[in-house]
Amino acid sequence: MKLPELRDVEDAYERIKPFVHQTPVLSSTNINNIAGCELHFKCENFQKVGAFKYRGATNAVLSLSEADRRKGVATHSSGNHAAALALAAKNNGVKAHIVMPNNAPEIKKKAVAGYGAEITFCEPTLKARESTLAQVIDTTGAVMVHPYNQWEVVCGQGTAALELLQQVENLNTVMTPVGGGGLLSGSATYIKGVSSSIKVVAAEPMMANDAWKSFKSGVFQPVVNPDTIADGLCTSLGDLTFEIIKNKVDDILVVSEAGIREAMRMIWERMKIIIEPSSAVPLAAVLENRDHFKGQSVGIILTGGNVDLGNLPF
Amino acid sequence: MKLPELRDVEDAYERIKPFVHQTPVLSSTNINNIAGCELHFKCENFQKVGAFKYRGATNAVLSLSEADRRKGVATHSSGNHAAALALAAKNNGVKAHIVMPNNAPEIKKKAVAGYGAEITFCEPTLKARESTLAQVIDTTGAVMVHPYNQWEVVCGQGTAALELLQQVENLNTVMTPVGGGGLLSGSATYIKGVSSSIKVVAAEPMMANDAWKSFKSGVFQPVVNPDTIADGLCTSLGDLTFEIIKNKVDDILVVSEAGIREAMRMIWERMKIIIEPSSAVPLAAVLENRDHFKGQSVGIILTGGNVDLGNLPF
Repeated sequence: MKLPELRDVEDAYERIKPFVHQTPVLSSTNINNIAGCELHFKCENFQKVGAFKYRGATNAVLSLSEADRRKGVATHSSGNHAAALALAAKNNGVKAHIVMPNNAPEIKKKAVAGYGAEITFCEPTLKARESTLAQVIDTTGAVMVHPYNQWEVVCGQGTAALELLQQVENLNTVMTPVGGGGLLSGSATYIKGVSSSIKVVAAEPMMANDAWKSFKSGVFQPVVNPDTIADGLCTSLGDLTFEIIKNKVDDILVVSEAGIREAMRMIWERMKIIIEPSSAVPLAAVLENRDHFKGQSVGIILTGGNVDLGNLPF
Repeated sequence: MKLPELRDVEDAYERIKPFVHQTPVLSSTNINNIAGCELHFKCENFQKVGAFKYRGATNAVLSLSEADRRKGVATHSSGNHAAALALAAKNNGVKAHIVMPNNAPEIKKKAVAGYGAEITFCEPTLKARESTLAQVIDTTGAVMVHPYNQWEVVCGQGTAALELLQQVENLNTVMTPVGGGGLLSGSATYIKGVSSSIKVVAAEPMMANDAWKSFKSGVFQPVVNPDTIADGLCTSLGDLTFEIIKNKVDDILVVSEAGIREAMRMIWERMKIIIEPSSAVPLAAVLENRDHFKGQSVGIILTGGNVDLGNLPF
């Protein structure tokens, strides 16, 4: 399988740069003291639509041929990818068709509708989502944009790591959470292209540890009954993302639910920023493996900040 | 009464610069669209101890004579000023004596103790706080650092506006909330020293509108039974801060509790940052006076981010 390279992430960045926020990198003396290492948090929770997903979606939309632009884009998602694709399409004058499960949170339905996307509701099963999406594509001719298992999406997500390395020098390790693997594989593509000495380490909830199992065994393992507050990480890897992860990622660490909750609260309380549970998973991994990271300079990509303020896990 | 001038804030900045965070200025396209103007939020919620108060406290500590340094500093406070003075003293090798009401939240007692301050608890009345502080000063010889009504504190707080004007060009208006008036009078001192054409506008909860009454009548009015979620704004002006505000502030706007709650939630949800209710008061004033601010470029100082996550107002 042909894998994207450094140059492809750089090209994606040139393409999307005018459309994305260059998000800040924040750190906290307090958390550094607790963790025993130097942590640099890349704040993709401040990205448009509140998540790094806007990068990949924008790169996918900007990579369309003129003919495909006229047909529009389509996906199924109840989360950040739906909002990201809807806004990326809107900002580029392209029609977006989003299939959403009818039990998706009202606030997400509203956000996607607010970005002018055409929403088709379906039963909340993967089968219904996929068949409804197939129908929509059949009718409209729209181009499918996968939430992670797609070349342009992977390269777009990798631009977060590109900016991070521009913003912070001499990182020993870069960490991301892993769900479908788009951010992780894009980051690894860029980082290993720049320097083989920077470690790329993912973190995953123990209660949704399919990527860890796949990585350790070398054989794809689907996620089975994930039960984690890190609701953005309940998806399985794709064949493209798994191939990149196998080749370019140094390690995957699994963390407890209590660890995720503690790390999330620590970032809220000490850094005064709002992150979703998935974003807290790498810090949880650092705190549960302090000896491993001791004295290092570690970059962590905070993936998003979309939480229901009426339903916090603490 | 001699009032501080531009130069005094600039001197304070030279003094405290190595000790404070240069906090970022964030903005949100989303909120700009809702407000109908361009808003630039100066994030003092990211300041050390989570509040702008660290600026004034640091300037006060760094302005001590050698003899006074040896005696230490003292104040009474249950809030951000206590933590700010404790940390500013600690970071400069000076002893801090803090009088706290015995009903102060556990988390604030712990923070102040964690910064190595000597805490004396007293009954939760202003009288008990003042008499206990007098005793502490009598015994220790420590130098009182007032939370707002003091030259060095006012000049230190004014450095937030100084940074804001360095970070954003061509502001029409700068807004702060007003409680005791330290931040407002420091900001006005700096801004009017730079340019008389930049408006300085304060915002205050209608349910604690003593500064508005004092400003409009020209006669000092103490706060009476304040009842607002903006708990940092329940104090009266001091004679120094009132004199500066009378001379240099363009207007004070009052806002409803519902407006504060709405503005706070808007900043949390759209900007993904944690602010305390007091910080939301200026945005509430903009939203309740859209016509007045229409098309302007407005700087807003977000004062702090210390909230009890278990007890949110939404």
